[in-house]
Amino acid sequence: MTRSSGIRVAVSTAILTLRRGDDGDAGLALPLVRRTREPFADQWALPGGWLTETESPVDAAARTLAETTGLAPSYLEQLYAFGAVDRSPTRVVSIVYWALLRQDDVMAQSAAHLASGHAPENVQWFDIDALPALAFDHAKIIEYALWRLRNKVGYSRVAHGFLPAEFTLADLREAYEAILAKHLDPANFRRQVEATGNLLPTERFRTGNHRPARLYRYNTDVELADRGPLGSEETSIR
Amino acid sequence: MTRSSGIRVAVSTAILTLRRGDDGDAGLALPLVRRTREPFADQWALPGGWLTETESPVDAAARTLAETTGLAPSYLEQLYAFGAVDRSPTRVVSIVYWALLRQDDVMAQSAAHLASGHAPENVQWFDIDALPALAFDHAKIIEYALWRLRNKVGYSRVAHGFLPAEFTLADLREAYEAILAKHLDPANFRRQVEATGNLLPTERFRTGNHRPARLYRYNTDVELADRGPLGSEETSIR
Repeated sequence: MTRSSGIRVAVSTAILTLRRGDDGDAGLALPLVRRTREPFADQWALPGGWLTETESPVDAAARTLAETTGLAPSYLEQLYAFGAVDRSPTRVVSIVYWALLRQDDVMAQSAAHLASGHAPENVQWFDIDALPALAFDHAKIIEYALWRLRNKVGYSRVAHGFLPAEFTLADLREAYEAILAKHLDPANFRRQVEATGNLLPTERFRTGNHRPARLYRYNTDVELADRGPLGSEETSIR
Repeated sequence: MTRSSGIRVAVSTAILTLRRGDDGDAGLALPLVRRTREPFADQWALPGGWLTETESPVDAAARTLAETTGLAPSYLEQLYAFGAVDRSPTRVVSIVYWALLRQDDVMAQSAAHLASGHAPENVQWFDIDALPALAFDHAKIIEYALWRLRNKVGYSRVAHGFLPAEFTLADLREAYEAILAKHLDPANFRRQVEATGNLLPTERFRTGNHRPARLYRYNTDVELADRGPLGSEETSIR
Protein backbone atom coordinates (compact mmCIF):
# COMPACT_ATOMS: atom_id res chain seq x y z
CA MET A 1 0.00 0.00 0.00
CA THR A 2 1.37 3.40 -0.99
CA ARG A 3 1.33 5.75 1.94
CA SER A 4 0.09 9.26 1.42
CA SER A 5 3.53 10.87 1.48
CA GLY A 6 2.96 12.85 -1.71
CA ILE A 7 -0.29 14.36 -0.47
CA ARG A 8 -0.19 17.71 1.27
CA VAL A 9 -2.87 19.13 3.53
CA ALA A 10 -4.04 22.73 3.28
CA VAL A 11 -6.75 24.72 5.06
CA SER A 12 -9.00 27.46 3.66
CA THR A 13 -11.77 29.56 5.17
CA ALA A 14 -14.92 31.04 3.67
CA ILE A 15 -15.85 33.88 6.01
CA LEU A 16 -19.11 35.63 5.24
CA THR A 17 -20.51 38.94 6.34
CA LEU A 18 -23.74 40.81 5.69
CA ARG A 19 -23.20 44.29 4.25
CA ARG A 20 -25.40 46.97 2.83
CA GLY A 21 -24.88 47.75 -0.85
CA ASP A 22 -25.29 51.09 -2.61
CA ASP A 23 -28.91 50.18 -3.28
CA GLY A 24 -29.62 49.97 0.47
CA ASP A 25 -30.16 46.20 0.40
CA ALA A 26 -28.09 43.91 2.58
CA GLY A 27 -26.22 41.10 0.86
CA LEU A 28 -23.57 38.48 1.61
CA ALA A 29 -19.91 39.27 0.97
CA LEU A 30 -16.63 37.47 1.61
CA PRO A 31 -12.90 38.29 1.45
CA LEU A 32 -10.64 36.78 -1.18
CA VAL A 33 -6.86 36.90 -1.47
CA ARG A 34 -5.08 37.55 -4.76
CA ARG A 35 -2.46 34.84 -5.28
CA THR A 36 1.09 36.06 -5.77
CA ARG A 37 2.56 32.80 -7.07
CA GLU A 38 1.81 29.79 -9.24
CA PRO A 39 -0.40 27.90 -9.60
CA PHE A 40 -3.18 30.35 -10.44
CA ALA A 41 -0.93 33.42 -9.94
CA ASP A 42 -2.92 36.70 -9.91
CA GLN A 43 -6.22 34.86 -9.46
CA TRP A 44 -8.39 35.16 -6.38
CA ALA A 45 -8.63 32.43 -3.75
CA LEU A 46 -10.08 31.80 -0.32
CA PRO A 47 -7.78 32.81 2.55
CA GLY A 48 -5.75 29.82 3.68
CA GLY A 49 -2.40 28.06 3.74
CA TRP A 50 -0.66 24.83 4.72
CA LEU A 51 -1.49 22.78 7.76
CA THR A 52 1.66 22.47 9.89
CA GLU A 53 2.61 19.44 11.96
CA THR A 54 2.09 21.13 15.31
CA GLU A 55 -1.40 22.57 14.90
CA SER A 56 -4.89 21.20 14.44
CA PRO A 57 -6.74 22.03 11.21
CA VAL A 58 -9.03 24.54 12.95
CA ASP A 59 -6.03 26.30 14.52
CA ALA A 60 -4.35 26.40 11.11
CA ALA A 61 -7.51 27.87 9.57
CA ALA A 62 -7.63 30.60 12.26
CA ARG A 63 -3.92 31.33 11.90
CA THR A 64 -3.89 31.56 8.10
CA LEU A 65 -7.08 33.63 8.15
CA ALA A 66 -5.44 36.10 10.55
CA GLU A 67 -2.20 36.14 8.55
CA THR A 68 -3.85 36.79 5.21
CA THR A 69 -6.83 38.97 6.15
CA GLY A 70 -6.35 40.13 9.76
CA LEU A 71 -9.78 38.72 10.62
CA ALA A 72 -10.57 36.76 13.80
CA PRO A 73 -14.07 35.26 13.84
CA SER A 74 -15.49 34.07 17.15
CA TYR A 75 -16.49 30.75 15.62
CA LEU A 76 -15.11 28.58 12.83
CA GLU A 77 -16.90 25.44 11.70
CA GLN A 78 -15.57 22.75 9.43
CA LEU A 79 -17.34 22.78 6.09
CA TYR A 80 -15.83 19.87 4.18
CA ALA A 81 -12.55 18.24 3.19
CA PHE A 82 -12.06 18.64 -0.57
CA GLY A 83 -9.74 16.05 -2.06
CA ALA A 84 -10.45 15.43 -5.74
CA VAL A 85 -7.28 14.22 -7.47
CA ASP A 86 -7.35 16.99 -10.09
CA ARG A 87 -8.31 19.97 -7.88
CA SER A 88 -4.73 21.30 -7.92
CA PRO A 89 -1.67 20.68 -10.15
CA THR A 90 -0.09 18.87 -7.18
CA ARG A 91 -2.00 16.62 -4.83
CA VAL A 92 -3.57 18.74 -2.08
CA VAL A 93 -6.40 17.90 0.30
CA SER A 94 -7.99 21.12 1.60
CA ILE A 95 -9.91 21.11 4.85
CA VAL A 96 -12.26 24.05 4.49
CA TYR A 97 -13.82 26.02 7.35
CA TRP A 98 -16.54 28.60 7.29
CA ALA A 99 -17.45 31.44 9.59
CA LEU A 100 -19.84 34.35 9.88
CA LEU A 101 -18.68 37.77 11.01
CA ARG A 102 -20.75 40.85 11.79
CA GLN A 103 -20.03 43.82 9.56
CA ASP A 104 -19.16 46.05 12.55
CA ASP A 105 -16.58 43.46 13.66
CA VAL A 106 -15.13 43.40 10.14
CA MET A 107 -14.80 47.20 10.26
CA ALA A 108 -13.29 47.22 13.77
CA GLN A 109 -10.79 44.46 13.01
CA SER A 110 -9.78 46.07 9.72
CA ALA A 111 -9.30 49.46 11.42
CA ALA A 112 -7.16 47.86 14.17
CA HIS A 113 -5.06 46.18 11.51
CA LEU A 114 -4.58 49.41 9.58
CA ALA A 115 -3.57 51.23 12.78
CA SER A 116 -0.99 48.53 13.55
CA GLY A 117 0.81 49.19 10.28
CA HIS A 118 0.33 45.53 9.28
CA ALA A 119 -2.60 45.90 6.95
CA PRO A 120 -3.01 42.75 4.88
CA GLU A 121 -2.17 43.05 1.21
CA ASN A 122 -3.95 41.56 -1.77
CA VAL A 123 -7.23 41.15 0.12
CA GLN A 124 -10.56 42.37 -1.18
CA TRP A 125 -14.17 41.81 -0.20
CA PHE A 126 -16.57 40.69 -2.92
CA ASP A 127 -20.35 40.46 -3.03
CA ILE A 128 -21.22 36.81 -3.46
CA ASP A 129 -23.24 37.59 -6.58
CA ALA A 130 -20.25 39.35 -8.17
CA LEU A 131 -17.32 37.02 -7.56
CA PRO A 132 -14.23 37.14 -9.80
CA ALA A 133 -12.68 34.06 -11.45
CA LEU A 134 -11.40 31.82 -8.66
CA ALA A 135 -8.32 29.61 -8.31
CA PHE A 136 -8.51 25.83 -7.82
CA ASP A 137 -12.02 24.53 -7.02
CA HIS A 138 -12.76 27.55 -4.81
CA ALA A 139 -15.85 28.57 -6.82
CA LYS A 140 -17.37 25.17 -6.06
CA ILE A 141 -16.32 25.46 -2.41
CA ILE A 142 -18.07 28.83 -2.06
CA GLU A 143 -21.16 27.47 -3.75
CA TYR A 144 -21.20 24.62 -1.24
CA ALA A 145 -20.67 27.00 1.72
CA LEU A 146 -23.65 29.09 0.61
CA TRP A 147 -25.77 25.97 0.19
CA ARG A 148 -24.89 24.85 3.72
CA LEU A 149 -25.68 28.29 5.11
CA ARG A 150 -29.05 28.34 3.35
CA ASN A 151 -29.92 24.90 4.63
CA LYS A 152 -28.73 25.62 8.13
CA VAL A 153 -30.67 28.85 8.56
CA GLY A 154 -33.86 26.79 8.43
CA TYR A 155 -33.16 24.75 11.55
CA SER A 156 -30.64 26.70 13.65
CA ARG A 157 -29.74 30.12 14.95
CA VAL A 158 -27.01 30.57 12.37
CA ALA A 159 -28.29 34.02 11.28
CA HIS A 160 -27.29 35.23 14.73
CA GLY A 161 -23.70 35.25 13.46
CA PHE A 162 -24.55 38.36 11.44
CA LEU A 163 -26.44 40.22 14.17
CA PRO A 164 -25.55 42.16 17.32
CA ALA A 165 -26.75 40.90 20.72
CA GLU A 166 -30.03 42.81 20.36
CA PHE A 167 -31.83 43.27 17.08
CA THR A 168 -35.23 44.01 15.62
CA LEU A 169 -37.34 41.48 13.76
CA ALA A 170 -36.67 43.55 10.63
CA ASP A 171 -32.91 43.09 11.18
CA LEU A 172 -33.38 39.34 11.52
CA ARG A 173 -35.62 39.13 8.46
CA GLU A 174 -33.09 41.13 6.45
CA ALA A 175 -30.39 38.61 7.40
CA TYR A 176 -32.63 35.71 6.36
CA GLU A 177 -33.50 37.46 3.10
CA ALA A 178 -29.82 37.96 2.29
CA ILE A 179 -28.97 34.34 3.12
CA LEU A 180 -31.90 32.87 1.21
CA ALA A 181 -31.70 35.46 -1.60
CA LYS A 182 -35.45 36.00 -1.57
CA HIS A 183 -38.08 38.27 -0.10
CA LEU A 184 -39.91 37.06 3.01
CA ASP A 185 -43.35 38.23 4.06
CA PRO A 186 -42.91 40.27 7.29
CA ALA A 187 -46.06 38.99 9.03
CA ASN A 188 -45.36 35.33 8.20
CA PHE A 189 -41.74 35.73 9.25
CA ARG A 190 -42.72 37.24 12.61
CA ARG A 191 -45.17 34.41 13.25
CA GLN A 192 -42.61 31.74 12.39
CA VAL A 193 -39.74 33.07 14.49
CA GLU A 194 -42.02 33.77 17.45
CA ALA A 195 -43.23 30.15 17.26
CA THR A 196 -39.70 28.76 17.63
CA GLY A 197 -39.17 30.02 21.18
CA ASN A 198 -35.65 31.03 20.15
CA LEU A 199 -36.27 34.78 20.50
CA LEU A 200 -36.86 36.75 23.68
CA PRO A 201 -38.36 40.25 23.55
CA THR A 202 -36.50 42.93 25.52
CA GLU A 203 -38.02 46.09 27.01
CA ARG A 204 -35.91 48.20 24.66
CA PHE A 205 -36.91 49.71 21.33
CA ARG A 206 -35.04 51.12 18.39
CA THR A 207 -36.28 54.58 17.51
CA GLY A 208 -35.62 56.61 14.40
CA ASN A 209 -37.52 57.69 11.34
CA HIS A 210 -40.01 54.86 11.67
CA ARG A 211 -42.24 53.85 14.54
CA PRO A 212 -40.24 52.32 17.43
CA ALA A 213 -39.27 48.69 16.83
CA ARG A 214 -38.85 46.28 19.73
CA LEU A 215 -35.40 44.79 20.23
CA TYR A 216 -35.08 41.03 20.67
CA ARG A 217 -32.27 38.76 21.77
CA TYR A 218 -31.68 35.06 21.26
CA ASN A 219 -32.77 32.72 24.02
CA THR A 220 -29.45 31.14 24.99
CA ASP A 221 -31.27 28.54 27.09
CA VAL A 222 -32.23 26.89 23.80
CA GLU A 223 -29.38 24.63 22.82
CA LEU A 224 -27.78 25.38 19.49
CA ALA A 225 -28.62 22.32 17.42
CA ASP A 226 -25.51 22.16 15.32
CA ARG A 227 -22.39 21.61 17.41
CA GLY A 228 -22.89 18.23 18.97
CA PRO A 229 -20.32 16.10 20.75
CA LEU A 230 -17.33 17.57 18.94
CA GLY A 231 -17.65 20.45 21.37
CA SER A 232 -15.01 23.12 21.42
CA GLU A 233 -12.04 20.94 20.62
CA GLU A 234 -12.57 20.55 16.90
CA THR A 235 -14.90 23.28 15.82
CA SER A 236 -14.31 26.38 17.89
CA ILE A 237 -11.27 28.58 18.25
CA ARG A 238 -12.20 30.52 21.38
CA MET B 1 6.21 28.16 6.38
CA THR B 2 6.61 24.47 7.09
CA ARG B 3 4.80 22.44 4.49
CA SER B 4 2.70 19.56 5.66
CA SER B 5 5.15 16.88 4.53
CA GLY B 6 5.06 15.05 7.86
CA ILE B 7 1.30 14.78 7.88
CA ARG B 8 -0.34 11.69 6.43
CA VAL B 9 -3.93 11.39 5.30
CA ALA B 10 -6.09 8.38 6.16
CA VAL B 11 -9.72 7.51 5.53
CA SER B 12 -12.14 5.62 7.77
CA THR B 13 -15.78 4.64 7.43
CA ALA B 14 -18.52 4.20 9.99
CA ILE B 15 -21.10 1.98 8.30
CA LEU B 16 -24.28 1.38 10.25
CA THR B 17 -26.98 -1.20 9.90
CA LEU B 18 -30.22 -1.94 11.73
CA ARG B 19 -30.43 -5.47 13.10
CA ARG B 20 -32.75 -7.35 15.38
CA GLY B 21 -31.33 -8.46 18.68
CA ASP B 22 -32.16 -11.58 20.67
CA ASP B 23 -34.83 -9.56 22.49
CA GLY B 24 -36.66 -8.92 19.19
CA ASP B 25 -35.87 -5.20 19.22
CA ALA B 26 -34.03 -3.60 16.32
CA GLY B 27 -30.85 -1.66 17.13
CA LEU B 28 -27.93 -0.03 15.35
CA ALA B 29 -24.74 -2.02 14.74
CA LEU B 30 -21.48 -1.39 12.92
CA PRO B 31 -18.43 -3.41 11.85
CA LEU B 32 -15.03 -2.91 13.46
CA VAL B 33 -11.65 -4.29 12.45
CA ARG B 34 -9.17 -5.68 14.97
CA ARG B 35 -5.80 -4.03 14.40
CA THR B 36 -2.91 -6.39 13.72
CA ARG B 37 -0.10 -3.89 14.25
CA GLU B 38 0.99 -0.94 16.36
CA PRO B 39 -0.20 1.55 17.32
CA PHE B 40 -3.18 0.11 19.20
CA ALA B 41 -2.39 -3.49 18.16
CA ASP B 42 -5.24 -5.91 19.00
CA GLN B 43 -7.68 -3.06 19.59
CA TRP B 44 -10.74 -2.44 17.46
CA ALA B 45 -10.93 0.38 14.91
CA LEU B 46 -13.18 1.65 12.15
CA PRO B 47 -12.46 0.10 8.74
CA GLY B 48 -10.07 2.31 6.79
CA GLY B 49 -6.57 2.87 5.48
CA TRP B 50 -4.28 5.35 3.78
CA LEU B 51 -5.37 7.76 1.07
CA THR B 52 -3.23 7.13 -2.02
CA GLU B 53 -2.08 9.78 -4.47
CA THR B 54 -4.25 8.56 -7.31
CA GLU B 55 -7.67 8.36 -5.67
CA SER B 56 -10.12 10.77 -4.11
CA PRO B 57 -10.92 10.41 -0.41
CA VAL B 58 -14.35 8.92 -1.11
CA ASP B 59 -12.84 6.37 -3.50
CA ALA B 60 -10.24 5.50 -0.85
CA ALA B 61 -12.98 5.08 1.74
CA ALA B 62 -14.91 2.72 -0.56
CA ARG B 63 -11.76 0.76 -1.45
CA THR B 64 -10.54 0.33 2.12
CA LEU B 65 -14.04 -0.58 3.29
CA ALA B 66 -14.24 -3.30 0.63
CA GLU B 67 -10.72 -4.54 1.40
CA THR B 68 -11.26 -4.79 5.15
CA THR B 69 -14.93 -5.79 5.41
CA GLY B 70 -16.11 -6.83 1.94
CA LEU B 71 -18.95 -4.32 2.21
CA ALA B 72 -20.08 -2.02 -0.62
CA PRO B 73 -22.68 0.55 0.44
CA SER B 74 -24.65 2.34 -2.25
CA TYR B 75 -23.89 5.70 -0.69
CA LEU B 76 -21.00 7.13 1.31
CA GLU B 77 -21.16 10.62 2.79
CA GLN B 78 -18.30 12.57 4.30
CA LEU B 79 -18.73 12.93 8.03
CA TYR B 80 -15.79 15.05 9.14
CA ALA B 81 -12.01 15.44 8.85
CA PHE B 82 -10.43 14.67 12.24
CA GLY B 83 -7.04 16.26 12.69
CA ALA B 84 -6.20 16.86 16.36
CA VAL B 85 -2.42 16.83 16.82
CA ASP B 86 -2.52 14.10 19.47
CA ARG B 87 -5.09 11.76 17.92
CA SER B 88 -2.39 9.30 16.82
CA PRO B 89 1.27 8.74 17.83
CA THR B 90 2.25 10.07 14.39
CA ARG B 91 0.52 12.97 12.68
CA VAL B 92 -2.50 11.66 10.78
CA VAL B 93 -5.52 13.53 9.45
CA SER B 94 -8.44 11.12 8.98
CA ILE B 95 -11.23 11.94 6.57
CA VAL B 96 -14.15 9.94 7.89
CA TYR B 97 -17.15 8.77 5.86
CA TRP B 98 -20.38 7.24 6.99
CA ALA B 99 -22.92 5.03 5.34
CA LEU B 100 -26.08 3.10 6.07
CA LEU B 101 -26.59 -0.42 4.81
CA ARG B 102 -29.69 -2.59 4.98
CA GLN B 103 -29.29 -5.76 7.02
CA ASP B 104 -30.30 -7.96 4.06
CA ASP B 105 -27.53 -6.33 1.97
CA VAL B 106 -25.05 -6.96 4.76
CA MET B 107 -26.06 -10.63 4.78
CA ALA B 108 -25.95 -10.96 0.98
CA GLN B 109 -22.55 -9.24 0.67
CA SER B 110 -21.08 -11.27 3.50
CA ALA B 111 -22.37 -14.51 1.97
CA ALA B 112 -20.90 -13.58 -1.43
CA HIS B 113 -17.58 -12.85 0.23
CA LEU B 114 -17.58 -16.16 2.08
CA ALA B 115 -18.40 -18.01 -1.15
CA SER B 116 -15.50 -16.30 -2.93
CA GLY B 117 -13.02 -17.69 -0.42
CA HIS B 118 -11.88 -14.17 0.44
CA ALA B 119 -13.78 -13.67 3.65
CA PRO B 120 -12.39 -10.67 5.55
CA GLU B 121 -10.49 -11.45 8.72
CA ASN B 122 -10.55 -9.67 12.02
CA VAL B 123 -13.92 -8.07 11.35
CA GLN B 124 -16.82 -8.20 13.78
CA TRP B 125 -20.16 -6.40 14.05
CA PHE B 126 -20.97 -4.69 17.35
CA ASP B 127 -24.17 -3.23 18.73
CA ILE B 128 -23.57 0.47 19.21
CA ASP B 129 -24.54 0.23 22.86
CA ALA B 130 -21.95 -2.52 23.45
CA LEU B 131 -18.81 -1.27 21.72
CA PRO B 132 -15.37 -2.54 22.78
CA ALA B 133 -12.41 -0.27 23.61
CA LEU B 134 -11.50 1.57 20.42
CA ALA B 135 -8.17 2.65 18.91
CA PHE B 136 -7.26 6.29 18.28
CA ASP B 137 -10.18 8.74 18.63
CA HIS B 138 -12.59 6.29 17.01
CA ALA B 139 -14.95 6.22 20.01
CA LYS B 140 -15.42 9.97 19.58
CA ILE B 141 -15.84 9.57 15.83
CA ILE B 142 -18.61 6.99 16.30
CA GLU B 143 -20.30 9.20 18.89
CA TYR B 144 -20.25 12.05 16.35
CA ALA B 145 -21.58 9.81 13.54
CA LEU B 146 -24.52 8.77 15.73
CA TRP B 147 -25.20 12.39 16.65
CA ARG B 148 -25.25 13.36 12.97
CA LEU B 149 -27.56 10.46 12.14
CA ARG B 150 -29.96 11.44 14.95
CA ASN B 151 -30.00 15.04 13.82
CA LYS B 152 -30.40 14.17 10.20
CA VAL B 153 -33.32 11.80 10.65
CA GLY B 154 -35.39 14.79 11.73
CA TYR B 155 -35.15 16.65 8.45
CA SER B 156 -34.30 14.12 5.74
CA ARG B 157 -35.10 10.67 4.44
CA VAL B 158 -31.97 9.17 5.93
CA ALA B 159 -33.86 6.31 7.62
CA HIS B 160 -34.57 5.03 4.10
CA GLY B 161 -30.97 3.76 4.08
CA PHE B 162 -32.08 1.00 6.46
CA LEU B 163 -35.29 0.02 4.65
CA PRO B 164 -36.21 -1.92 1.52
CA ALA B 165 -38.00 -0.15 -1.34
CA GLU B 166 -41.40 -0.86 0.22
CA PHE B 167 -42.02 -0.90 3.95
CA THR B 168 -44.77 -0.56 6.51
CA LEU B 169 -45.15 2.42 8.81
CA ALA B 170 -44.18 0.08 11.65
CA ASP B 171 -40.91 -0.71 9.82
CA LEU B 172 -40.20 2.99 9.43
CA ARG B 173 -41.05 3.76 13.05
CA GLU B 174 -38.82 0.91 14.20
CA ALA B 175 -35.92 2.46 12.23
CA TYR B 176 -36.57 5.87 13.81
CA GLU B 177 -36.82 4.32 17.26
CA ALA B 178 -33.46 2.58 16.81
CA ILE B 179 -31.79 5.75 15.51
CA LEU B 180 -33.24 7.99 18.22
CA ALA B 181 -32.97 5.31 20.93
CA LYS B 182 -36.45 6.07 22.20
CA HIS B 183 -40.03 4.88 21.88
CA LEU B 184 -42.30 6.81 19.50
CA ASP B 185 -46.07 6.91 19.75
CA PRO B 186 -47.45 5.03 16.69
CA ALA B 187 -50.39 7.39 16.05
CA ASN B 188 -48.28 10.55 16.36
CA PHE B 189 -45.58 9.03 14.18
CA ARG B 190 -48.08 8.13 11.46
CA ARG B 191 -49.52 11.64 11.50
CA GLN B 192 -46.09 13.27 11.28
CA VAL B 193 -44.73 11.19 8.41
CA GLU B 194 -47.97 11.45 6.45
CA ALA B 195 -47.78 15.25 6.81
CA THR B 196 -44.33 15.40 5.18
CA GLY B 197 -45.49 14.24 1.76
CA ASN B 198 -42.38 12.05 1.59
CA LEU B 199 -44.29 8.77 1.71
CA LEU B 200 -46.54 7.29 -0.94
CA PRO B 201 -48.97 4.46 -0.10
CA THR B 202 -48.89 1.44 -2.42
CA GLU B 203 -51.77 -0.95 -3.11
CA ARG B 204 -49.81 -3.77 -1.49
CA PHE B 205 -50.06 -5.06 2.07
CA ARG B 206 -47.88 -7.17 4.29
CA THR B 207 -49.79 -10.10 5.73
CA GLY B 208 -48.81 -12.40 8.54
CA ASN B 209 -49.79 -12.97 12.13
CA HIS B 210 -51.18 -9.47 12.50
CA ARG B 211 -53.79 -7.64 10.48
CA PRO B 212 -52.50 -6.67 7.02
CA ALA B 213 -50.27 -3.58 7.04
CA ARG B 214 -50.11 -1.29 4.02
CA LEU B 215 -46.74 -0.97 2.29
CA TYR B 216 -45.38 2.49 1.53
CA ARG B 217 -42.52 3.76 -0.58
CA TYR B 218 -40.60 7.02 -0.54
CA ASN B 219 -41.71 9.73 -2.92
CA THR B 220 -38.63 10.18 -5.05
CA ASP B 221 -40.07 13.36 -6.56
CA VAL B 222 -39.25 15.04 -3.26
CA GLU B 223 -35.65 16.19 -3.45
CA LEU B 224 -33.36 14.73 -0.84
CA ALA B 225 -32.39 17.76 1.21
CA ASP B 226 -28.89 16.78 2.11
CA ARG B 227 -26.68 16.37 -0.93
CA GLY B 228 -26.45 19.85 -2.38
CA PRO B 229 -24.10 21.07 -5.08
CA LEU B 230 -21.35 18.57 -4.31
CA GLY B 231 -23.45 16.12 -6.29
CA SER B 232 -22.02 12.75 -7.12
CA GLU B 233 -18.40 13.76 -7.50
CA GLU B 234 -17.51 14.07 -3.84
CA THR B 235 -20.14 12.20 -1.90
CA SER B 236 -21.32 9.20 -3.85
CA ILE B 237 -19.54 6.15 -5.09
CA ARG B 238 -22.10 4.77 -7.51
